[in-house]
Amino acid sequence: MGEIPDSHPRKPSLLARARLTEAAAEGLLAESAMIAHGRGEAFDYLLGEMTSDSALAAIHESAARLLAAERPVISLNGNTTVLAGKDAIRAAAILGCPVEVNIYYRTSERMSKLISTLTEMRDEVSSEPAPDAWTGSQWPDAVMAVEILGADADGRIAGLEGPRSQCSSRGIEAADAVLVPLEDGDRCEALIALGKQVLVVDLNPLSRTARMANVTIVDEVSRAMKKLCKALLDNPSPTQWDNDATLRDALDIMAEASNRI
Amino acid sequence: MGEIPDSHPRKPSLLARARLTEAAAEGLLAESAMIAHGRGEAFDYLLGEMTSDSALAAIHESAARLLAAERPVISLNGNTTVLAGKDAIRAAAILGCPVEVNIYYRTSERMSKLISTLTEMRDEVSSEPAPDAWTGSQWPDAVMAVEILGADADGRIAGLEGPRSQCSSRGIEAADAVLVPLEDGDRCEALIALGKQVLVVDLNPLSRTARMANVTIVDEVSRAMKKLCKALLDNPSPTQWDNDATLRDALDIMAEASNRI
Repeated sequence: MGEIPDSHPRKPSLLARARLTEAAAEGLLAESAMIAHGRGEAFDYLLGEMTSDSALAAIHESAARLLAAERPVISLNGNTTVLAGKDAIRAAAILGCPVEVNIYYRTSERMSKLISTLTEMRDEVSSEPAPDAWTGSQWPDAVMAVEILGADADGRIAGLEGPRSQCSSRGIEAADAVLVPLEDGDRCEALIALGKQVLVVDLNPLSRTARMANVTIVDEVSRAMKKLCKALLDNPSPTQWDNDATLRDALDIMAEASNRI
Repeated sequence: MGEIPDSHPRKPSLLARARLTEAAAEGLLAESAMIAHGRGEAFDYLLGEMTSDSALAAIHESAARLLAAERPVISLNGNTTVLAGKDAIRAAAILGCPVEVNIYYRTSERMSKLISTLTEMRDEVSSEPAPDAWTGSQWPDAVMAVEILGADADGRIAGLEGPRSQCSSRGIEAADAVLVPLEDGDRCEALIALGKQVLVVDLNPLSRTARMANVTIVDEVSRAMKKLCKALLDNPSPTQWDNDATLRDALDIMAEASNRI
């Protein structure tokens, strides 16, 4: 893909596609990852490619629940690593929690490629400017303390079978709150059944994941993760949360898309 | 991709995705095919993943216009060959017309792979049960008589330039009615300008193709093609057709999606 001019109205979306195409060539993604991304692009198009007020509220609620949790974890798959890996590491550094690579089509080659990608990203983030109020070596220390789990797969998600049940015993298995961008429905259901807080980022408000999660952020994952980092610094508190209302709001925005023609 | 259990609520969608992933690995699809499919998945989600009454009416109208045409043709690209190739051949056998492989990113390698895929599909269809009322060798004879055009590319679509203008002189160039699932907007416009009846299958009711076609079937292509075969056997007649009404109905269904939460 050639240079995309800054003036292009859909530059972020085209850049995301280019990054994924590159990552696919490098073997970071499952074969169906581009289909999943294409589906996301369509929903995002209908959303107007911006974070809605209700999505922002869901981001703040997710931040609050992650901060309130005793053992939060951020789960990452191929697409989210590529699109939002660095911001996920920033969020984990603020929370003092691990990230865990957890992929649907698990191969040891993809796992190790994703883990080394995240390890490089962690190095980069540690040398980047600290958020306000972090002084001295606080920020690089916090970033380098973020564990990147997933390689061991010594844990199980009860209620699932086969490779999809694999996880880290110190990550998803032990967690009381899991941020799972772009999760599959079965796994979301199993995590909910285990009594964990499940906070998801999903552009499809009708997916099983979106409808089952405790909090659903209907937003594009790189926008959402960036805003989550900001929200975590605001130190919000959990509220009574009506997740169906946020899903309905997203669908209403999509329904209005035909009026934008 | 592992076995998908029969109980999975979205099995047809996952199977379609698996088939496309496999076809991509075999070199049957353009690079952008997976993203295009994902986009379709998003619209289909909003439609509830079923054929609406207005889409069924559009299928019947398309069947009627194909039956009324003197030289109908069914145009196929990579995705439609993979998802609905066999039903396209069945429809062509009932109509006594050719199918034509016509792809946006034309390479001779992809063309020959798609043509040999369709040739194998034609063999399979010929030995499968005949529709009611077809007796003896009528059905296998009709199926094996379906020409698979496209390799020669000795025709031109006036009004287009470059590789996209290429077609078969005995197929799309000569046709008075073209069924074009998943067409691009420019080509749809050129076919309309040539005075052909253009009948399209497009999950995006807002696409240029959907808005320009004579009849737009807003439905997933494998569902639509299966129902088209049935509709052809009912021998319907063309009517006055309000295509904008069918597009509005599809948008209304998508807009109502929030009530399904």
